[in-house]
Amino acid sequence: MLDKISGLSAFPITPSDAEGSVDETGLRRLLARLAEAEVDSIGLLGSTGTYAYLSREERRRAVTIAAETLGGRVPILVGIGALRTDEAIRLAQDARAAGADAGLLAPVSYTPLTDDEVFRHFEAVAGEGGLPLVIYDNPSTTHFRFSPALIGRIARLPGVVAAKCPAPEPEAAAAGVATLRAAVPADVSVGFSGDWNVTEALIAGGAAWFSVAGGLFPRTCLAITRAVQAGDAAQARALNAELAPLWILFKAHSSLRVVYALADHLGLCRAEPPRPILPLAPEIRAEIFATVRTLSLA
Amino acid sequence: MLDKISGLSAFPITPSDAEGSVDETGLRRLLARLAEAEVDSIGLLGSTGTYAYLSREERRRAVTIAAETLGGRVPILVGIGALRTDEAIRLAQDARAAGADAGLLAPVSYTPLTDDEVFRHFEAVAGEGGLPLVIYDNPSTTHFRFSPALIGRIARLPGVVAAKCPAPEPEAAAAGVATLRAAVPADVSVGFSGDWNVTEALIAGGAAWFSVAGGLFPRTCLAITRAVQAGDAAQARALNAELAPLWILFKAHSSLRVVYALADHLGLCRAEPPRPILPLAPEIRAEIFATVRTLSLA
Repeated sequence: MLDKISGLSAFPITPSDAEGSVDETGLRRLLARLAEAEVDSIGLLGSTGTYAYLSREERRRAVTIAAETLGGRVPILVGIGALRTDEAIRLAQDARAAGADAGLLAPVSYTPLTDDEVFRHFEAVAGEGGLPLVIYDNPSTTHFRFSPALIGRIARLPGVVAAKCPAPEPEAAAAGVATLRAAVPADVSVGFSGDWNVTEALIAGGAAWFSVAGGLFPRTCLAITRAVQAGDAAQARALNAELAPLWILFKAHSSLRVVYALADHLGLCRAEPPRPILPLAPEIRAEIFATVRTLSLA
Repeated sequence: MLDKISGLSAFPITPSDAEGSVDETGLRRLLARLAEAEVDSIGLLGSTGTYAYLSREERRRAVTIAAETLGGRVPILVGIGALRTDEAIRLAQDARAAGADAGLLAPVSYTPLTDDEVFRHFEAVAGEGGLPLVIYDNPSTTHFRFSPALIGRIARLPGVVAAKCPAPEPEAAAAGVATLRAAVPADVSVGFSGDWNVTEALIAGGAAWFSVAGGLFPRTCLAITRAVQAGDAAQARALNAELAPLWILFKAHSSLRVVYALADHLGLCRAEPPRPILPLAPEIRAEIFATVRTLSLA
């Protein structure tokens, strides 16, 4: 099912109740919207999908629900990160058994980890998890900083198929993407996250956009992605510029908190983020809804 | 059982096997050593006690083992941190039922948390956990940075009895301790961790030393603590200066990895840290053992 990871990978929230039980109806509605828009893959249980806050059992349930809903129409990448190596292996095995096409593995840390510890962690999960792996580089949540050399070293492990890296600032996009591409074997995709910076990273040669906005507004984000893929950088930049007010909100309040507010506002699901994360204050929500009304989002 | 938290609080490792099952014999041996030395309290399941890597069931087991071993001779502070607020409440309730005297609550994060989210988290756990709380400020592991104002705000919640803060650099000890003391009500203890910087923080008025070295060498750390308590700063500084080679190792390789190597070397238990954390390389272990042989540690 999984060919090379490229294009738009949409990362939805995982609606759940106050006890951490996944809202099946809400999740199906979010996923169906992504499948109808024909995104290139879905990043289930990413950071935005609150994988770190859900039990093993609920994570397995979410994958099962997604596999049923999508019925093979869209590849499913699943967050399998955990603090313990043995737990990440079990989560990879669970995800595979439930129908995942690849695992998103972030080096979640409490005790700060060394490069060698992170390498061994990926080696163990790639070897024993039975699932193709995407290196999930997200220093704002894991607090681990990958060097391009370490990404390259891990990318050479059998079973590693892609890397999801923070998009460089636009002015550094060409150099940043070139450095990563030079570090990573040609058959391993290098894609980017951090929606506000991704368009330039795609234009600079990034293979995929791992997108929070894409989890809610897949058609809007696909338009940018397809413009880049068609070689029309000017069109991609123009479409991206229209979204600048959304990117400002993401940077100010975190993309996760903003898309929770919007999913509720759009009537897609009524979920709140898992505590201790709080819903945004009413005045911030009002600002978000007013801003989004002025944008062409779909 | 718990009076005001002061003096030496010793933080041992929690020996466990590769599957994360606590080694009862090893833990009892470590705890008996601390009780015999008459430390002022024990910090069970702190960061060094790998609470973040152990299941709820094993954390409950560790508290039960500790309460049995100590039989009320030494107050037990127990790490109850978790990513989810409801889980931290359950862990506080478990710890209380198993015999803990207080809970150590760190604002463990994945999605970066706001001040208000951390405040509400502490409020919920203090209110529903049923256990006196120690604010556990450890930005190197939680990646949350407390301001003195936020510590002061949380310290005013009913049930909060102490704060465990990173000790300032020695040259900033007086100002740093004074700032915290001014922020926190008089009946709430302010103590410090980061062994290499604590002596000056105690001399500057810190009430307690939350100590990794103290979990393995309680008599050595008690000698420093008692010298400060007796008003003999010169003696405390002289004893602390003798430990400089140990502090250098802690800073270079992390105190957690060093005390795992030493607990094994001293024959106290055979545990390795939970993967992905790796045992230190043989050449580093050899350097540690050679250094420790030159020090008076007990």
